[in-house]
Amino acid sequence: MSDCIFCKIVNKEIPATVVYESEEVLVFMDIGPIIKGHVLVIPKKHYDPVTETPDEILAEMHLTAKKIAAAQMNGLGADGVNIMQNNGKASGQEVEHIHIHVIPRFNNDGHHWNWNPKVYNDFEEMNDLAEKLQKQLNYE
Amino acid sequence: MSDCIFCKIVNKEIPATVVYESEEVLVFMDIGPIIKGHVLVIPKKHYDPVTETPDEILAEMHLTAKKIAAAQMNGLGADGVNIMQNNGKASGQEVEHIHIHVIPRFNNDGHHWNWNPKVYNDFEEMNDLAEKLQKQLNYE
Repeated sequence: MSDCIFCKIVNKEIPATVVYESEEVLVFMDIGPIIKGHVLVIPKKHYDPVTETPDEILAEMHLTAKKIAAAQMNGLGADGVNIMQNNGKASGQEVEHIHIHVIPRFNNDGHHWNWNPKVYNDFEEMNDLAEKLQKQLNYE
Repeated sequence: MSDCIFCKIVNKEIPATVVYESEEVLVFMDIGPIIKGHVLVIPKKHYDPVTETPDEILAEMHLTAKKIAAAQMNGLGADGVNIMQNNGKASGQEVEHIHIHVIPRFNNDGHHWNWNPKVYNDFEEMNDLAEKLQKQLNYE
């Protein structure tokens, strides 16, 4: 897409620091890292969101993220890795070209994801949502 | 693994509200949801972390997460979806059996991921980390 910043990176119209690529996938440094060493895995073709991304492309993206996670642990000494893929403005997604954040984590790096679980009012509330999902998934 | 809570769920030693399953993968409601409707996708066999998970299992997990994202949008009316997979205590991972969080997001649901990007001191700092990753990935 002509107005997509990630397509411009793929087309070399905008510079990026590439760390890996294959025929279908490009991996480059995120210039606004949650933790330094944070990279993005994108498909070279424009797809968005995950539900519109072909299975074979999505699988290759995640197998690439696995390689990046190993590289962050072995090459940067990361103690852990977050792999995060956001879909839609409501999720925090900013660039509407599917991308996986691969973020190296270090003990005591000071970052917290604001992980504040909610509590279901009762079993029925949770079960009602589960049934709606089961119906979509044809799971009985 | 006998002391793994997710293995106990797979073996039906601990109850869970299952919304989908295949031969290799189980999907159930997270009882501590970031947003109500949050589910977990796990492999039925015990693997951890992502770097130790076989490619074909990891791919099936993420193709399943894609189906769940569609079900959350179409069945729960979600405006967006976060797909997150954490590795290691440093990342915030709590149960050491690989799992993907699939979290429905709604406009104005009030959740924020504490997304506070850092700034590289200069290009050299970023490039130095990139080179360490490239070396691990045999990318020149």
